[in-house]
Amino acid sequence: MNIMWCSSRPALICLKRQLPQCTPPQPGSLILPAFRINFRTVSTMSEKMQHDTILYGGGVSSCSWRVRAAMAIKNIEYKHVILSTKAPDEATLKKLQEINPLRQIPALYIDGNTLTQSVAIMEYLEETRPEPAIYPKHPLNRAQVRQVVELINSGIQPLQNPTVAQRYSSDEAKQKEWQVYWIEKGLTALEKILEKTSGKYCVGDEVTAADCALAPQIFAARRFGADINKFPLAVGIYNNLLEVEAFRQSHPFNQADAPDDKRGQIV
Amino acid sequence: MNIMWCSSRPALICLKRQLPQCTPPQPGSLILPAFRINFRTVSTMSEKMQHDTILYGGGVSSCSWRVRAAMAIKNIEYKHVILSTKAPDEATLKKLQEINPLRQIPALYIDGNTLTQSVAIMEYLEETRPEPAIYPKHPLNRAQVRQVVELINSGIQPLQNPTVAQRYSSDEAKQKEWQVYWIEKGLTALEKILEKTSGKYCVGDEVTAADCALAPQIFAARRFGADINKFPLAVGIYNNLLEVEAFRQSHPFNQADAPDDKRGQIV
Repeated sequence: MNIMWCSSRPALICLKRQLPQCTPPQPGSLILPAFRINFRTVSTMSEKMQHDTILYGGGVSSCSWRVRAAMAIKNIEYKHVILSTKAPDEATLKKLQEINPLRQIPALYIDGNTLTQSVAIMEYLEETRPEPAIYPKHPLNRAQVRQVVELINSGIQPLQNPTVAQRYSSDEAKQKEWQVYWIEKGLTALEKILEKTSGKYCVGDEVTAADCALAPQIFAARRFGADINKFPLAVGIYNNLLEVEAFRQSHPFNQADAPDDKRGQIV
Repeated sequence: MNIMWCSSRPALICLKRQLPQCTPPQPGSLILPAFRINFRTVSTMSEKMQHDTILYGGGVSSCSWRVRAAMAIKNIEYKHVILSTKAPDEATLKKLQEINPLRQIPALYIDGNTLTQSVAIMEYLEETRPEPAIYPKHPLNRAQVRQVVELINSGIQPLQNPTVAQRYSSDEAKQKEWQVYWIEKGLTALEKILEKTSGKYCVGDEVTAADCALAPQIFAARRFGADINKFPLAVGIYNNLLEVEAFRQSHPFNQADAPDDKRGQIV
């Protein structure tokens, strides 16, 4: 059983973390005993990780879907605690408060620490569990991925956020107008970037963190009433992503809080 | 002259980029010829970099200061094209349009490519010019840095942006109220994070990308009328940063577009 865990993906990644990077074995190193020690430690760590990785998120929350998608691509097992953003119960809020005093979702308890901010979480997952990768190898391509991520993360999502729209106006029609304005402005800029960077996905033909940001953004754009047909590149990529198992698994309508009439619909 | 360039910081970093990471020399490798080839290439690249690195930014633009601070910490030379966000002339706009079709600042032309989004630029600079580092080594500390960066980059800056405030209301008093509300809400959350992560600076006692985000945010908070005295940790760090040469150099009031009555005042 321990051996099974040792050969699982999280275990192998723990093993990598314990090896100093770029340091070839020193003369006189005892390779085999070193690996034996690592495997024992790995087994313990992976068991802890299995039990302790908890994602606090929300089904339709864009930032939560980003993290779910990254976790699914990397085959990371976790307990999923879904918080309805509308009315979480007191016990859930208390638990979240303990984990994350800011009470923000997503919050990921992993490796004994609590991480917040979806982009910081995706980068952490990449650094601690590098395969399968969600960032390309070349610095320029990595910058392109982060450019897409940040355009969505800071250029669109904060402005479409219902809390922000509600502060703009108490009138629901005006809230929608506000959300659609910022979404379409942001997606117009994104479309220009995608003209240069995209292939089957946002940057070339491999799924990256940029796609983990794009899928929830297009889903939200439609949900908030934007005309997504104006953005054929982004929508084409979204449709390609819906064919990818990690995006199907992590889709809002595949989560426990999906509305009954939408459950299991991957659209 | 070529040799001088080879030993400059950018040149050494180019050299690192050309060497595959974590690959010890194979049996039979010819180390010296390999280095000779690299040095020739590096010399050409560094000369191109010297002439071609151009930052399009604005003195008081928060995102531009982030990039200026990172460039100053890393001693990267560049030509600085300052765009007044109020009334850039046609020639400047045309040049920016060529460099960045989105017409957004900051835009950094570097290594033959144009990069946008301040966070993507800071990460690119770190990956291509790793010393002096602006991200810590340990993944958890790196996540803490990115958590601060993203809280500011997506949780505060987009909402305080004058364009957004102007869409909220044409009344200047209401614009200010909107900006102060989001700044103080964000800085309240930031203060809780800093309780756990900060030392002399945002994360421990070394200057990081988190500080490149924090300094412009505190400067902007005061500029937009927020009561920064409510946030003693953030303000304490800001004051420490104003003692750091890279932050003094890159300060808005040390840029060409500083108002005459503020020029050179590092506050």
